[in-house]
Amino acid sequence: MSLSGAYDDDNVFARIVRGEIPKALIAEDEATMAFMDAFPQSRGHSLVIHKFSRARNLLEAEPGVAEALIGTVQRLTRAIRAALEPDGIVVTQFNGSAAGQTVFHLHFHVIPRWEGVALGRHAAHTADPTQLQDLARQIGEKFRD
Amino acid sequence: MSLSGAYDDDNVFARIVRGEIPKALIAEDEATMAFMDAFPQSRGHSLVIHKFSRARNLLEAEPGVAEALIGTVQRLTRAIRAALEPDGIVVTQFNGSAAGQTVFHLHFHVIPRWEGVALGRHAAHTADPTQLQDLARQIGEKFRD
Repeated sequence: MSLSGAYDDDNVFARIVRGEIPKALIAEDEATMAFMDAFPQSRGHSLVIHKFSRARNLLEAEPGVAEALIGTVQRLTRAIRAALEPDGIVVTQFNGSAAGQTVFHLHFHVIPRWEGVALGRHAAHTADPTQLQDLARQIGEKFRD
Repeated sequence: MSLSGAYDDDNVFARIVRGEIPKALIAEDEATMAFMDAFPQSRGHSLVIHKFSRARNLLEAEPGVAEALIGTVQRLTRAIRAALEPDGIVVTQFNGSAAGQTVFHLHFHVIPRWEGVALGRHAAHTADPTQLQDLARQIGEKFRD
């Protein structure tokens, strides 16, 4: 899917916001939601989305949406450091399938990295739901500190 | 370099802000600056930095800094689409050397992608300064639209 097109109300993240698909929720506020990626590239791989924006990507985001998201991303990076003590953290945001985007609802990836541990391929495997809930709880506790 | 440590006032981006190192400037406002990456991974690879924050990474960013940066990143993605018509755009932000960070002054990469064109390795080669200035001019014109 290119950078132009229409928002699909049945994309996975829209369904997660509506509660139609289970998620391992880390935290949410009025506008945004952080939860575990179900196909993690590393332990603690998390996502941040907006709950009301129908932007497919950053280019389409309405005023204030990107700012709300990055605020939650920042808090999440701090919470992941506190909970999991990674050596580094990658933040990525993909616009268009040519850029690696697979769900067309604007989102940020927050991916902890450890020295000497390569990243897994995205969507190569589904994580154990119990492990994801446990990670979400650990990170969520630090998020609220 | 890990996620903890001190800000180095002589890092490359601090020197760019002070005008000690030449840059291909796309645009700047009171707080932020967008310019071409001197070691581009694709045509149009750009960077966004804050001019006054001494945050090494997103975790350290003072209130308002991440929000100012993402606003400029968003405008830049739109300007790059208008100027270069890529198929996709990747936004990345690295925290710590384990995450791929090489300059320890908070920054966002904005990397246009084209279908079928692989990304170059970062810092594998220095771009032609004249080409970078030309790209900065093309993108800058759209940024100000």
